[in-house]
Amino acid sequence: MTITNRIRLGMIGGGQGAFIGGVHRYAARLDDRYELVAGVFSARPEVNRASAEELRVDPTRCYDDVLALIAGESGREDGVQAVAIVTPNHLHFEAARACLEAGLHVICEKPMTLTADEAETLADLAQQKQVQFLLTHPYVGYPLVQHARKMVKRGDLGQLRMVNVEYVQEWLAETPGPDNKQADWRLDPARAGAAGCLGDIGTHAYQLSAFISCLTLDSVSADLSAMVKGRQLDDNVHALLRYTSGAKGMLWASQCAPGFENGLRIRVVGDRASLEWAQENPNELWFAPLNAPRQRITRRDDWLDDDIGRSVRIPGGHPEGYIEAFANLYQALADALDGGSVSWLPDASTGVDGLHFISAVLRSSQADGAWAAVPPAVGKERRSGRRSDD
Amino acid sequence: MTITNRIRLGMIGGGQGAFIGGVHRYAARLDDRYELVAGVFSARPEVNRASAEELRVDPTRCYDDVLALIAGESGREDGVQAVAIVTPNHLHFEAARACLEAGLHVICEKPMTLTADEAETLADLAQQKQVQFLLTHPYVGYPLVQHARKMVKRGDLGQLRMVNVEYVQEWLAETPGPDNKQADWRLDPARAGAAGCLGDIGTHAYQLSAFISCLTLDSVSADLSAMVKGRQLDDNVHALLRYTSGAKGMLWASQCAPGFENGLRIRVVGDRASLEWAQENPNELWFAPLNAPRQRITRRDDWLDDDIGRSVRIPGGHPEGYIEAFANLYQALADALDGGSVSWLPDASTGVDGLHFISAVLRSSQADGAWAAVPPAVGKERRSGRRSDD
Amino acid sequence: MTITNRIRLGMIGGGQGAFIGGVHRYAARLDDRYELVAGVFSARPEVNRASAEELRVDPTRCYDDVLALIAGESGREDGVQAVAIVTPNHLHFEAARACLEAGLHVICEKPMTLTADEAETLADLAQQKQVQFLLTHPYVGYPLVQHARKMVKRGDLGQLRMVNVEYVQEWLAETPGPDNKQADWRLDPARAGAAGCLGDIGTHAYQLSAFISCLTLDSVSADLSAMVKGRQLDDNVHALLRYTSGAKGMLWASQCAPGFENGLRIRVVGDRASLEWAQENPNELWFAPLNAPRQRITRRDDWLDDDIGRSVRIPGGHPEGYIEAFANLYQALADALDGGSVSWLPDASTGVDGLHFISAVLRSSQADGAWAAVPPAVGKERRSGRRSDD
Amino acid sequence: MTITNRIRLGMIGGGQGAFIGGVHRYAARLDDRYELVAGVFSARPEVNRASAEELRVDPTRCYDDVLALIAGESGREDGVQAVAIVTPNHLHFEAARACLEAGLHVICEKPMTLTADEAETLADLAQQKQVQFLLTHPYVGYPLVQHARKMVKRGDLGQLRMVNVEYVQEWLAETPGPDNKQADWRLDPARAGAAGCLGDIGTHAYQLSAFISCLTLDSVSADLSAMVKGRQLDDNVHALLRYTSGAKGMLWASQCAPGFENGLRIRVVGDRASLEWAQENPNELWFAPLNAPRQRITRRDDWLDDDIGRSVRIPGGHPEGYIEAFANLYQALADALDGGSVSWLPDASTGVDGLHFISAVLRSSQADGAWAAVPPAVGKERRSGRRSDD
Repeated sequence: MTITNRIRLGMIGGGQGAFIGGVHRYAARLDDRYELVAGVFSARPEVNRASAEELRVDPTRCYDDVLALIAGESGREDGVQAVAIVTPNHLHFEAARACLEAGLHVICEKPMTLTADEAETLADLAQQKQVQFLLTHPYVGYPLVQHARKMVKRGDLGQLRMVNVEYVQEWLAETPGPDNKQADWRLDPARAGAAGCLGDIGTHAYQLSAFISCLTLDSVSADLSAMVKGRQLDDNVHALLRYTSGAKGMLWASQCAPGFENGLRIRVVGDRASLEWAQENPNELWFAPLNAPRQRITRRDDWLDDDIGRSVRIPGGHPEGYIEAFANLYQALADALDGGSVSWLPDASTGVDGLHFISAVLRSSQADGAWAAVPPAVGKERRSGRRSDD
Repeated sequence: MTITNRIRLGMIGGGQGAFIGGVHRYAARLDDRYELVAGVFSARPEVNRASAEELRVDPTRCYDDVLALIAGESGREDGVQAVAIVTPNHLHFEAARACLEAGLHVICEKPMTLTADEAETLADLAQQKQVQFLLTHPYVGYPLVQHARKMVKRGDLGQLRMVNVEYVQEWLAETPGPDNKQADWRLDPARAGAAGCLGDIGTHAYQLSAFISCLTLDSVSADLSAMVKGRQLDDNVHALLRYTSGAKGMLWASQCAPGFENGLRIRVVGDRASLEWAQENPNELWFAPLNAPRQRITRRDDWLDDDIGRSVRIPGGHPEGYIEAFANLYQALADALDGGSVSWLPDASTGVDGLHFISAVLRSSQADGAWAAVPPAVGKERRSGRRSDD
Repeated sequence: MTITNRIRLGMIGGGQGAFIGGVHRYAARLDDRYELVAGVFSARPEVNRASAEELRVDPTRCYDDVLALIAGESGREDGVQAVAIVTPNHLHFEAARACLEAGLHVICEKPMTLTADEAETLADLAQQKQVQFLLTHPYVGYPLVQHARKMVKRGDLGQLRMVNVEYVQEWLAETPGPDNKQADWRLDPARAGAAGCLGDIGTHAYQLSAFISCLTLDSVSADLSAMVKGRQLDDNVHALLRYTSGAKGMLWASQCAPGFENGLRIRVVGDRASLEWAQENPNELWFAPLNAPRQRITRRDDWLDDDIGRSVRIPGGHPEGYIEAFANLYQALADALDGGSVSWLPDASTGVDGLHFISAVLRSSQADGAWAAVPPAVGKERRSGRRSDD
Repeated sequence: MTITNRIRLGMIGGGQGAFIGGVHRYAARLDDRYELVAGVFSARPEVNRASAEELRVDPTRCYDDVLALIAGESGREDGVQAVAIVTPNHLHFEAARACLEAGLHVICEKPMTLTADEAETLADLAQQKQVQFLLTHPYVGYPLVQHARKMVKRGDLGQLRMVNVEYVQEWLAETPGPDNKQADWRLDPARAGAAGCLGDIGTHAYQLSAFISCLTLDSVSADLSAMVKGRQLDDNVHALLRYTSGAKGMLWASQCAPGFENGLRIRVVGDRASLEWAQENPNELWFAPLNAPRQRITRRDDWLDDDIGRSVRIPGGHPEGYIEAFANLYQALADALDGGSVSWLPDASTGVDGLHFISAVLRSSQADGAWAAVPPAVGKERRSGRRSDD
């Protein structure tokens, strides 16, 4: 099957009332390289059908479940080529496995799975089937995040000393009402997994720090809390990090902090300079050399390397945001499917790495903060999120 | 002809190498309510054809000129319903007139025309033909700009005293190279009209200030400059404003100011509070009451009125940008075409108002800054940009 | 009389309940180079005496009026060497003239006098008597303001194109209560002079722009308003500026703008770069070169030239403020009195220049904004605020 | 001995070339309530004498050592009443002990001593002698820091959840040259003590967080590093905090982080709102309630409680800085010596608390991050830094 023209996309989840599915659709649509042609938008049949109609998906390609979708689409010449999995966490694994086994490219929300073993299984499968697996950590799609990584890699910061990353939100600062669909499954261990805030946004913070710093995590010392009364999962994560290079880090993730919206912020400190970037104003990157004025780098294609400039749609000073960053993942995946080389996309190995991070944080916190090694898993190097071309 | 499903869109201009045409397409695409089906993308046949192919437009619907497009499309059941005109300024008028006369809805770049008379003609025609005319001043598409207007209208600022607006850029700080297509026509009076920076971004600044303040301009005192040697058109605009209410204003527009990217910024001062908003970080709006702490209002649908919240696609703290603002214009037009009521869209009367502003600034500057009245034109009230429902 | 050790200072005005007198005393005290030994602190005898006691001034050196002070002090070996005049505006001239005639150095609040003629008289007198005249425009005492001027002078910005300066406050946004001493005289033409906001803070804005830009003002076009009902003097100033070099400027001063505290802000734009500085966060200076990242310059003595670094008391990152800036004027005056060379102090010629500015703005506004030339006064060059060493 | 008029101050340390001694003198001078009359400015006789002369201290009151100063001054009717100890850390204890035993009030730099035992000894002595002991943690002198504490205490934030504090500098990012006096002793365990960055600025960060949050620290988990090669003491501190209330915290202190000047920053998060304050722009305090706009509170005496407004010398919008904050400590001490009640001054118990913090961090780091309890010392409650009136 050759990928021609628009990529034919299926979607699992993302029906009416969902949030992230809509973002995936904006992202797929923006550069006009995908066409949503099939889906299982909801487990509730009426929502599933209504969503398909609203999305102008042919009713006959609105399926009851993933297996039906695979069966239905595999028989068509114009069947789906890639599937976006945007369900709650606990459903990722089975859906992704089925799609991968059917040879479909997979776009999957994070955290990739509930356990590192599941993640390893998917990573092996993706490799074996030679298909693409895009894990949607969208923040690395921001051009200035990619530029920050470039600066680290080319030595602008010197040798790294410290990484300080945080993702702080307020939206779960109180017990949410029963009609808050986003909160509902995220606070339920059966659907979210053993990690609450840690899995939901702690992984974003960790992945962003790994992406920019290009450091390998050695071990973590963590203190998880459930600040809101009656909460079963963590809603605040404090962690100290040690990297194999000797660099040190701090990570704070919280969903119970009034006054914060989507406060993802990172500072990377080297022995010659430091960097700072914050998601809420993503069109500027601060570069602060030792004993020299701090510089505000903006998102201008004439300043960025060509491969990054490709992710810049409009001139510097005209702000781009979260949807554009997300679309950059979809765009890069389309490039890859068209035979291009894309080195920076979060993939299955990124997902494995994220699950190892989650696992280590949980173990450390349960051991009262004792340093927990990140598993030196077979294949870790291959899946480290830092690739051979880095 | 009823408007069903996706609106069938044609485009005049916007071929390969152009800038704003691409933005229109992002905007049209984002919410999936338009389909680009025809166009005259370039006056150069090969660019026209190549652009159509790249955009997946049926080659038979890629026309040589506007009249051909109208002729070709009017005979089809699935012909275009709306046409986006994204050419240099001097081509707006004829293209728009032809489309309006053919009963097509028009989406037109600003400034609407080269003269106020032309603008009046189009406004009359649009009214007579009962079609929509969207003038793409995209900044009013930002949700917080709309919210700012709401705050002014509901009296949060008290009676307005001062408006201070500026749009400052650096991109024409030097004489551009010959291959700079964007600069080429903008610096040529034959294609840009008599107003340089004034027409290109001064109108944006003026329109934004009129939109938020809801004030009626009485007269202007202006000092235009061509700072860069050899430039035929103004590249810097200094103007003082007087409103009919007694409020006063200042406007600064520049395209030759190193260090500024797309620095559109507005402050509106009332007797009880003031507002500040800047395009480069559009997701915050500052509200500063007398003798009380300044507040940072963010783009959250739970804070904004329903009609504005509709323009918010993702949660506060996840930034939206210029493309989303632009898409809000397209979305609102689609709502209007679907029979909805949209009070805030810049339309033909906004364009007339803009040309009157341009005309007054030019006259004042030529008269060494003498106050120039904004023409009390017949129909001005109807077209004032402040509508009866405001 | 040689100036040894601490300079013996007298003060006119600044009794209990006054504001700026206290600031002068902080400034004089900080570097321990002045000693307040005499004064006429108030026209009301009991306030005068009580103030002297509170300030530990010998009661016999607390005088009834300026002439008595001069008479009393001139007979003492340890008599005052310099006098700070911190009264309302209408009292500056007579007090300063008497002190100058007595051969005393004078430190005087701005605006220097009520008229340009008076200012000329004082300037001539100071020159004839060979004494120092310090006009307290404190904002030029900020190290980064001095650095900004250096950058302009050494060509970092290229040739200047635009200056944009504003000083915006809210404190007179309403009619103040009768017990507001600061407001009382400032709103009274008999004591403040013909210029309200213009004289009080418009002159600060103008002087700051002249200091940094080193440009000579050619003419102004102004629109003064009294926004608050019943106000006799202007409380809002809008002005366009033309410099002799061809550069253009805008000036906004307001005391009736809710949401602004002491919003003195300046932007200077050259053909190669621009600068921005704001008084409310004076420890950073923004330098923005064409097509390069904006830089944040901080107040570090290792970055600034030696003569400016002298004005830096504590390391960069430890903020300095208004009192330190003010103290830098006193410190530089002390250096000058000790025989040092200080080129940047605002002096009598600065005051003349300020009065010419006020006069031109008033004339323009009365002539409905017609451009008013700044008087090409005899001696203007000498007093232009730009000195031979510049 | 009654305290009348200016307080007679002696100083230990602070000779030519020193840094913090000069700051103490600015602080003592600003409000004119102290007079520097005696001192031991340096261990080197010629520097000692030259410093005294420069400071206009009577040569006969320039002593060779602390004991000589005490002996010389105790016999005078106009002898020193208070002594400021501004030497390197290792000299604090003996000097302070001698002064306290002589019944002198003591102003002492932090960290108070090298060990907690020493600190306890001084605290007992100060209590026994009924004299004042001011520990100069100047950051609590900022009016908005005091206001932040008020807001916490009156419940504006609800119940506290998290504290995030950092103090990050670059000035020791490289091995300093041999002539860097400030660095010299700070990097030498014999003079600085066992804590490097931890003792120098980690204590400031901790003390600020204790002051604002009013929380009692239960235990710490820390990871100290010496990032710069060859350094004997820590130059980077990462610590997790647990408070007795269940709240959690993070602390980062670093002196080897390029791009940071005096980056002291604190965020306090409650279940209803959060606060943020940063020393580099100390004239604003951010208050961010749950689901409401973030507010910028400025340093205005009309907004702050009377006891805090007393620390505001000039109007909001006119910036105050580090010297003024420092002077507020001296001013409050003068008030206390004049019989006033000052509840917030850092005192000997604050110093004990700081040494306990240092000790716990060192123990935890040596135990690979195991949680180290803060010693539940006898008298801890009395000395907790949170006093009975809080």
